[in-house]
Amino acid sequence: MSVHTDRSSVTVLGLGPMGRALAGAFLDAGLRTTVWNRTPGRDTDLVARGAVPAASPEEAVAAAPLTVVCVVNYDASDAVLRQDAVTTALKGRTVVNLSADTPERSRDTAAWAGRHGVRYLDGAIMTPTTTIGTDAGVFLHSGPEELYREHRPVLDALGGSHTHLGEDIGRAAAYDIALLDIFWTSMAGYAHALAVARAEGVTAEELAPFAGGIAAILPPLFTQFAADADAGTYSGEVNPVTSAVSTMAHVVHASEGHGIDASVMRVIEGQARRVIALGHGADAFTRLAEVLARR
Amino acid sequence: MSVHTDRSSVTVLGLGPMGRALAGAFLDAGLRTTVWNRTPGRDTDLVARGAVPAASPEEAVAAAPLTVVCVVNYDASDAVLRQDAVTTALKGRTVVNLSADTPERSRDTAAWAGRHGVRYLDGAIMTPTTTIGTDAGVFLHSGPEELYREHRPVLDALGGSHTHLGEDIGRAAAYDIALLDIFWTSMAGYAHALAVARAEGVTAEELAPFAGGIAAILPPLFTQFAADADAGTYSGEVNPVTSAVSTMAHVVHASEGHGIDASVMRVIEGQARRVIALGHGADAFTRLAEVLARR
Ligand SMILES: NC(=O)c1ccc[n+]([C@@H]2O[C@H](COP(=O)([O-])OP(=O)(O)OC[C@H]3O[C@@H](n4cnc5c(N)ncnc54)[C@H](OP(=O)(O)O)[C@@H]3O)[C@@H](O)[C@H]2O)c1
Ligand SMILES: NC(=O)c1ccc[n+]([C@@H]2O[C@H](COP(=O)([O-])OP(=O)(O)OC[C@H]3O[C@@H](n4cnc5c(N)ncnc54)[C@H](OP(=O)(O)O)[C@@H]3O)[C@@H](O)[C@H]2O)c1
Repeated sequence: MSVHTDRSSVTVLGLGPMGRALAGAFLDAGLRTTVWNRTPGRDTDLVARGAVPAASPEEAVAAAPLTVVCVVNYDASDAVLRQDAVTTALKGRTVVNLSADTPERSRDTAAWAGRHGVRYLDGAIMTPTTTIGTDAGVFLHSGPEELYREHRPVLDALGGSHTHLGEDIGRAAAYDIALLDIFWTSMAGYAHALAVARAEGVTAEELAPFAGGIAAILPPLFTQFAADADAGTYSGEVNPVTSAVSTMAHVVHASEGHGIDASVMRVIEGQARRVIALGHGADAFTRLAEVLARR
Repeated sequence: MSVHTDRSSVTVLGLGPMGRALAGAFLDAGLRTTVWNRTPGRDTDLVARGAVPAASPEEAVAAAPLTVVCVVNYDASDAVLRQDAVTTALKGRTVVNLSADTPERSRDTAAWAGRHGVRYLDGAIMTPTTTIGTDAGVFLHSGPEELYREHRPVLDALGGSHTHLGEDIGRAAAYDIALLDIFWTSMAGYAHALAVARAEGVTAEELAPFAGGIAAILPPLFTQFAADADAGTYSGEVNPVTSAVSTMAHVVHASEGHGIDASVMRVIEGQARRVIALGHGADAFTRLAEVLARR
């Protein structure tokens, strides 16, 4: 069996919470899974479940045709992959980099891979560690379609949905950036809301079902505003930014009245006021998408 | 039939998008619905559907035992309610104020109502206009339980779920503030994500299903972090803030590289770095809820 067509083994570099979840799913799917992490000792549970520990990253990548990298960012993946011994061992093999970073870094890594005869796919994971190996995982991929097809059977062992976004290597990172933007901004709003609620004598547990209700109204609004955004129309007929800005000001006022930092909402309120000042007061708040990119 | 037990009529003050939706639902439920709005002409469709137009707010409130107020904020509701003729006409009647504002303003309005013999309930609407009159509407109420029970049959005509949060008049506004915080912060993240995606050549339509997927993972995370927050433990075992901050930095870098304002994420990244600097790097990002309120 050639190294390229071996679909029974895989290597995982990086054993943080996500790398461990990926390696665990590969093991559960019956793949021979070789693992390595910069800091030793992170592989104990995985080795107990049958993973093969590698003494070095070059040894790890040599053990399988496909290496999945999942470290904190591309500074970290560069530190691992761009060592002579590792680069040499990777020649003719495939790397799927599931670490998060910018499209720019994906393109730079693809150029490096091209120079060294390394076959390269980029990817991003859009769901928490607990979804790995279940139907709920969401994986995005970009890069050469043929390479993606070749390794799809191994990637499928991770469960969930896999979407190939196109040959442009930076595309998975572009989606990742936009989606992490939504995710972390929402989480920042939630953390702030917990602080405000607590100051008002409302526990997080009391707020949680209603907070979940707010999250539940987002998907249809996202879809509706997506159509608006692509059309460049941001109808505020049902909720103009002039109405929204008033509630933003309440959040700032109530938080600061309790001594709670409201700097995120202060910025958002300021952006909404700018949308209004630019003549878009009757539009929806999402008109902001254009104002943020205004030149 | 005494004015108090008349459950067949209601008054709506304020005919913005939400006030019109409320009045429409009352009409659909067969209630005699009197309407008034500061700027004339907003009642045309409602009057065509059977609403009774009032020439003044005092005439409007005199037409029913219960007046629902839904204007932009409490500066606006004060401007309408705290006029001598209106205050006099309201004596012995009930006002449910569904306008959004702070708990402080609710308490102030309750004190005003008490001084003038006006029966007062506060409330908040947590869902868009399109949900009014459907099962999907979410209404929060606070104030005297007995008064709430008395008017519940009329409020039920609005459809959806109604929750009485307690006798503390400010409680509905406290929930409202916290939930609007989550809502507008999330929407700001979405508007920003649309700008970044567009700069990367990804349309809003392409991003929408994945954006919806991000929203879908929020409710279970909200519930999980709620338990953490009440317990004061913010486990970062599956996703430490040191990992999160790296992806926040990518969002800032990628946006600013396209000339897109990233000030919201800059603030959030700064808050995450502060959480780490205070010694909580191994915790979840939601530890921020405590750091924001730190004294
Ligand atoms: N956790 C989640 O819920 C989640 C969800 C979606 C996507 N992701 C993404 O998945 C990736 C991995 O995340 P994670 O949750 O496993 O935790 P993480 O904290 O982002 O990454 C930890 C991993 O990065 C390694 N690392 C950091 N700097 C390094 C360097 N200079 N050289 C070599 N290795 C280095 C760590 O090795 P050491 O043990 O030696 O420090 C560890 O293996 C990230 O890009 C993250 O954004 C995570
Ligand atoms: N729309 C939604 O999706 C939604 C969802 C949940 C909650 N809410 C809340 O519902 C309330 C009403 O919202 P809305 O959507 O109908 O639009 P809005 O723009 O917040 O409010 C418009 C209404 O406020 C009135 N108003 C403003 N200033 C006034 C003043 N000084 N005196 C008298 N009336 C004044 C307007 O009268 P004129 O016509 O004379 O200007 C109009 O009736 C707000 O508190 C909002 O936060 C709205």
